Amino acid sequence: MITDKLIEKIIEKQNPTAVGLDTELGYLPEELRAGIASPEEAAEAIFTFNKTLLDHVYDLIPAVKVQIAYYEQYGAAGIDCFIKTVDYAKGKGLFVIADCKRNDIGSTAARYSAAYLGETEIGGAVSFACSADFLTVNGYLGSDGITPFTDDCKKHDKGIFVLVKTSNPSSGELQNLKLADGRAVYECMGDMVEGWGADTVGAYGYSAVGAVVGATYPEEAKVLRKRLPHTFFLIPGYGAQGANAEMLKNCFDEKGLGGIVNNSRGILCAYKKTGGTYFDAARKACVAMQEDLRSVLGEICAK
Amino acid sequence: MITDKLIEKIIEKQNPTAVGLDTELGYLPEELRAGIASPEEAAEAIFTFNKTLLDHVYDLIPAVKVQIAYYEQYGAAGIDCFIKTVDYAKGKGLFVIADCKRNDIGSTAARYSAAYLGETEIGGAVSFACSADFLTVNGYLGSDGITPFTDDCKKHDKGIFVLVKTSNPSSGELQNLKLADGRAVYECMGDMVEGWGADTVGAYGYSAVGAVVGATYPEEAKVLRKRLPHTFFLIPGYGAQGANAEMLKNCFDEKGLGGIVNNSRGILCAYKKTGGTYFDAARKACVAMQEDLRSVLGEICAK
Repeated sequence: MITDKLIEKIIEKQNPTAVGLDTELGYLPEELRAGIASPEEAAEAIFTFNKTLLDHVYDLIPAVKVQIAYYEQYGAAGIDCFIKTVDYAKGKGLFVIADCKRNDIGSTAARYSAAYLGETEIGGAVSFACSADFLTVNGYLGSDGITPFTDDCKKHDKGIFVLVKTSNPSSGELQNLKLADGRAVYECMGDMVEGWGADTVGAYGYSAVGAVVGATYPEEAKVLRKRLPHTFFLIPGYGAQGANAEMLKNCFDEKGLGGIVNNSRGILCAYKKTGGTYFDAARKACVAMQEDLRSVLGEICAK
Repeated sequence: MITDKLIEKIIEKQNPTAVGLDTELGYLPEELRAGIASPEEAAEAIFTFNKTLLDHVYDLIPAVKVQIAYYEQYGAAGIDCFIKTVDYAKGKGLFVIADCKRNDIGSTAARYSAAYLGETEIGGAVSFACSADFLTVNGYLGSDGITPFTDDCKKHDKGIFVLVKTSNPSSGELQNLKLADGRAVYECMGDMVEGWGADTVGAYGYSAVGAVVGATYPEEAKVLRKRLPHTFFLIPGYGAQGANAEMLKNCFDEKGLGGIVNNSRGILCAYKKTGGTYFDAARKACVAMQEDLRSVLGEICAK
């Protein structure tokens, strides 16, 4: 079961970190950007950056999160780069979270699921557009927009993370509103997520249907960790967005399990603060982040 | 202003219809599908289908909606087909709604906006990945996830449609819950949309920030039409999803303005019911839909 496997890798590496490959052209050092004049050249340079960076950090981390918006802006060449990045990370033994926040009515959600988690039939044969392990999705449309994804999770041993309490400053405008029944909207979304995952709970007690819970909101994280005992968290907001290790402690259970923390700019752009090569700086930033997380989580242990 | 221009085209054609190019390989007639064995061939066949279909209906309609999930399942080749379809439709004088339901925190939403509505800088020059007129977005993250899109709307004369009350059976699970202040969640989202559009209201009284309102929920549509006087509606649910013309009357104002109705399978797959070529059947289905809409809306008139 995919979430069990991810948890095993987190325990093995003692590191609940996902490096976020939200790779902007502007994040690349000058020597990789020089002379680039087309989307194809931009996509190729970004792939080179991603590969070299992964070569230098893959042994430290269990997973990467690849944010597709940064690739879509380069059109088809960008999508080709996104897919190659996913494949390269998987080849390095990493779990891959495709951060696409997809959502639609059932018949259309099934196509998104086919694209990232499942398969597409072409001429009687099966084709895989992108073989991510996890996909982020938005649950505003309710159950029939989620079922196609959870069906593929069961069929192909994949997982999803549904937006519950996002890390951005305005997330409370809708998500923190109180419902007539006393729950906040994010609690209601969390309850739906716990329900959607009820039939995929694995050996460590967490299901294949996770939740996105921002580290920037520790009070809400505390509520959600208690309320959603079988829901694994994808935790953005550490680093550039302002959350520190102490703030995200609430996302984890007493064993140091229950979530994985994303860091994008803090790793990709570490060299801009420290100097040196981007890949050495990224490795040092990964080590520093691991130490920072372990300072609050201690030994991560399934016992 | 983009919404004014769309409304002028609707009045000129006397037809508030968007043909939905949610083109599945299975929708193509056998002769277009024969021998296809790769994503590249699938994408090419779909583009041929889209082009021929547009050649036969473009004079009847003001706009198309292109649903990207159907293209993403073919990877980079699918995205290339999506972008070429958008360009071909624009070349035929049609307004193009990119139905992508994108959403993220501000810095990432800005990359999605760059991909579909704005521009990307590459090597000091400006690059356009996809030149749609409108993009559908999901507002679960609140204002800072929307601002990058509305900024590009103002800069590039584009528009967005935010999911408010979706057409699918489960949409009420979250969207119809009552808030403590007495509003339903969809009313609250609608109020935010009306606010996000307040500074882009055009000559016909509608802003560049529209709402997705499903024709399958006429009671909610009635509430929203009254509540959001400056919000133009993108209306899915007609035809295959079960809504008829009478049900979507509530989405329009007394002049027959205020919305555009999408029909995908009812046009693309019309030939499967009627026989004949797919393009002749699509044209007949467009004419029949126009007559059906006009039977409830009457003369569409700005006066």
